[in-house]
Amino acid sequence: MSQKILAINSGSSSLKFKLYELSEQTVLASGHVDRIGQRNSTFTFEIHGQKTIQAEKMDDHLAAIQAVVNGLLTSHVIEHKSEIIAVGHRISHGGRFYTHPVKVDAAVKAKIKELSVLSPLHNPVNLAGIEAFEKILPEAAEVATFDTSFHYTIPPKAYMYGLPYNYFKDHDIRRYGFHGPSHEYIVLKARELFGTQQTRRMITCHLGNGASLCAALDGKSVNSSMGFTPLAGLLMGTRSGDIDPEIIPFIEERFHMSSEDVRKMLNQDSGLLGLSGLSNDVRDLNQAAKAGNQRAQLALDVYVHQIQQYIGAYTTDLNGLDMLVFTAGVGEHSAMIRQAVCAQLTFLGVKLDDEKNRADALRIDAPNSRVKVAVIPTDEEAIIARDIKQVLGIK
Amino acid sequence: MSQKILAINSGSSSLKFKLYELSEQTVLASGHVDRIGQRNSTFTFEIHGQKTIQAEKMDDHLAAIQAVVNGLLTSHVIEHKSEIIAVGHRISHGGRFYTHPVKVDAAVKAKIKELSVLSPLHNPVNLAGIEAFEKILPEAAEVATFDTSFHYTIPPKAYMYGLPYNYFKDHDIRRYGFHGPSHEYIVLKARELFGTQQTRRMITCHLGNGASLCAALDGKSVNSSMGFTPLAGLLMGTRSGDIDPEIIPFIEERFHMSSEDVRKMLNQDSGLLGLSGLSNDVRDLNQAAKAGNQRAQLALDVYVHQIQQYIGAYTTDLNGLDMLVFTAGVGEHSAMIRQAVCAQLTFLGVKLDDEKNRADALRIDAPNSRVKVAVIPTDEEAIIARDIKQVLGIK
Repeated sequence: MSQKILAINSGSSSLKFKLYELSEQTVLASGHVDRIGQRNSTFTFEIHGQKTIQAEKMDDHLAAIQAVVNGLLTSHVIEHKSEIIAVGHRISHGGRFYTHPVKVDAAVKAKIKELSVLSPLHNPVNLAGIEAFEKILPEAAEVATFDTSFHYTIPPKAYMYGLPYNYFKDHDIRRYGFHGPSHEYIVLKARELFGTQQTRRMITCHLGNGASLCAALDGKSVNSSMGFTPLAGLLMGTRSGDIDPEIIPFIEERFHMSSEDVRKMLNQDSGLLGLSGLSNDVRDLNQAAKAGNQRAQLALDVYVHQIQQYIGAYTTDLNGLDMLVFTAGVGEHSAMIRQAVCAQLTFLGVKLDDEKNRADALRIDAPNSRVKVAVIPTDEEAIIARDIKQVLGIK
Repeated sequence: MSQKILAINSGSSSLKFKLYELSEQTVLASGHVDRIGQRNSTFTFEIHGQKTIQAEKMDDHLAAIQAVVNGLLTSHVIEHKSEIIAVGHRISHGGRFYTHPVKVDAAVKAKIKELSVLSPLHNPVNLAGIEAFEKILPEAAEVATFDTSFHYTIPPKAYMYGLPYNYFKDHDIRRYGFHGPSHEYIVLKARELFGTQQTRRMITCHLGNGASLCAALDGKSVNSSMGFTPLAGLLMGTRSGDIDPEIIPFIEERFHMSSEDVRKMLNQDSGLLGLSGLSNDVRDLNQAAKAGNQRAQLALDVYVHQIQQYIGAYTTDLNGLDMLVFTAGVGEHSAMIRQAVCAQLTFLGVKLDDEKNRADALRIDAPNSRVKVAVIPTDEEAIIARDIKQVLGIK
C-alpha cells in the first residue's frame, strides 16, 4: 500500500481532516467532526466526492480522532493504520518560539502546553489532538504547524504595542497574528494563479466565524489584524475584536466582573452575536436585515466598516494595493459583504464586476479595476500537509 | 469699560486661558498655568506680545484661577472683575447628552459630575474650574463646551463596538471621540483658508501629548480615533492607545493587578514613555534616536506607523482624501514626524515639499501632490469663545 499523511485542523469543539496520498499529494478522503463534547456531535466524511454525515456522540478530541481513523479503515481508504506515516497538526499559538513548523517531541509538547495561557481555547485541544494520535498511531511522526509562524515577518513598528517595554521584553506581549496557514495558502495560491507582479501588494481577508486580515508584501506577511491573541482586530462571530481598552476596567468595576468574566464576554458573547442579539452567522443576519431587523443590519454595517478600516490601514503598510482576496466562509460565499466592503474602496480604484461577484467567481474585479479582486477558497490542510513533508524531509 | 469673555481650557494639572474683547473677539491676554498641585507650578502670562513667566505655588485649580484673575487685574487688562461677563469651559466628556455647548446650571454640573466616571482625569478638574469661577466671578455666566460634541455626527457603524448590545443601550458604551474643539477649529479654519471644495474629504491629526485623528466629510466628523474614553486610538505621550483587549485580563491575572492598577498603567506609564523608557516627548525621543538610542527610535516608529494606519483607515470612511492637516505640539512643530507619516502615503498622491515642511509652513504639499497637506496651529479657546457667544445669544 502507498504511504499516506494526515492533516488535522482542530478547533475548540471541531476537527477537520484531510488524508493525502504521500507522493502525489492527492486528497484521498476528507471530513470534519462538529460539536465535539456536545450531545448532537456529527461526523462528516467525504470520499470520491461522496459525502456521508452521521450523528455520533463524541465526548472529546480523542473520540473524534478515533472516529476519523475508524472511518478511514471501514471505508477502505486505508487497510491498516500503519499506512499513515505522519500526522500534521495546526497549533494555535507558537509564541515567539516557532517561526517554522517542527517535528513534535516532548519539548515541543511542553511548549505548546506552556503557551496555552495565550490561547486557552485552542492550544489545549491542539495538544489533545497530538496526544490522541500518539495513542492511536504510535508509529506515525507528528508535525506541528503554527498559526503564528507566517506572521513572523511583521516588523516591530506593527507588532509592538504602546505598553511599558518590559511587557514585551520579559513577557512576550506583542502582536503575533493568527490564521497563518490560511493567509499563507491564499498568498501562495494568488501568486501562483496571477503571478508575483500582480500580487506584490496584497491584502487577504479571512472572513469566517473567526476573522482576520493580513497585509502581505511580496508574499510575506507585514501585518495581521489579530494580535497577542485571536481576540483582536475585527469583530467576529462571537468575539469583540478591538475596543477602547479602558472599557475593560470600566466594566469590571461597574458590573463587578472578574477578568475571567470579561474574557468570556469578549470571546463568547460579543461580535455579530452580541451586537445583533440574534446570530453569529452572516447569512442569518443578512436574511433578518432584509426582513427589517435593524440590529441585524447594524451588526453587518459595523462588520463591513471594520473590514474597510483594516483594508485602508493595510494599504498604508503596502503603500498601495495590487490585489485584494476574500476567503473562508463569509469571504467565499457572501457577495453582499464583498460588495459592501468594496463600495468605500473606489478611491483605490477597486471596481467589482457585479455578476462575477454574485457568482463567487475566482476573479470578481471589473476590467477597468485598478486593484485585482479575487475569491479563493482557503485550504489550511494543504499547508499542514506541505509542512509535514518539509519537516520530515520528504521530497 | 468694554465687556470681555474668558475661555478656560483646563487639563488634569494645567490650565490655559484667553481673554477676549467681546464685540471684536480680539485676544486681550492669554496664558497658562502648568503643574498645578506640584511644587514647581508656573504661571505664564502674555499681553501685547509680552510674555512673563513666574514660579508660583498653586495647590489646585481654584488657586490657578485666582492667579489668572489677579494677573488680569494687576496688569490692568481689566480694571474690575465685573468686566468679564462670561466664562467658557472646555469639558472633557459630554456622554450622549451634549451635542452642543450649553449654559451651565445645576443640572449641567450634576451631569458633568456623573460623567466623571467616563473621564476620571478630566471631568472633575473641569467641574472644579466651573465652581472656582462661581466663587470668583459670581455674576459671570458660565458656558460648557464639550470635547465630544463635534463628534456627534459619527455614524453608528463607526461608533458601535462589537460588544453585547446592552452595554450600548443601557450603559452608553460607544465611541464618543475627543479633542472636539481642536478638530472643529482645524476643520473650520481649513475650510475658510482653502475653500470647501479642496477640504471635502479631510483628516485632521491632533498630535500633542494626547493625540487623536479625525475624519471629516464636508466639515462634519465621521470618525475619531479616541473612543469611549481618551485612552483609545494612537499611542500617546503616556497612554497606550489601542491594544488587544485580551491583554488586560491576561495582565490582571498574571501580575495580580486590579482594574485600577491596569487603568493607571495604560494611562500613565504607557505610550511613548513606556515604550522608550525615556520620555513622553517626541523632541527628546528624536534627539535620543539620532544619538543611537534604539528604543527611542522604536517608539517613534510605532507612533508614526499608528498614525499611518488611522490615515489609511479614515481614507475609507471618506472614500479618498483631499486634505491632510497636522496640528498641536508635535503636529505643528515636528517636520520629522510629518515627513515619516507621509512617506507611506504616496499611493494616495501625498507629496511633501521638504523645504516648506522643514519650515512648518501653512501648506507643505508639493505642487504636484494630489492631496493638500497643511500645518495649522490649533486654537481650542477660539471655539470656546465662539460657543460662549452662541449660547448666550450675543451677536
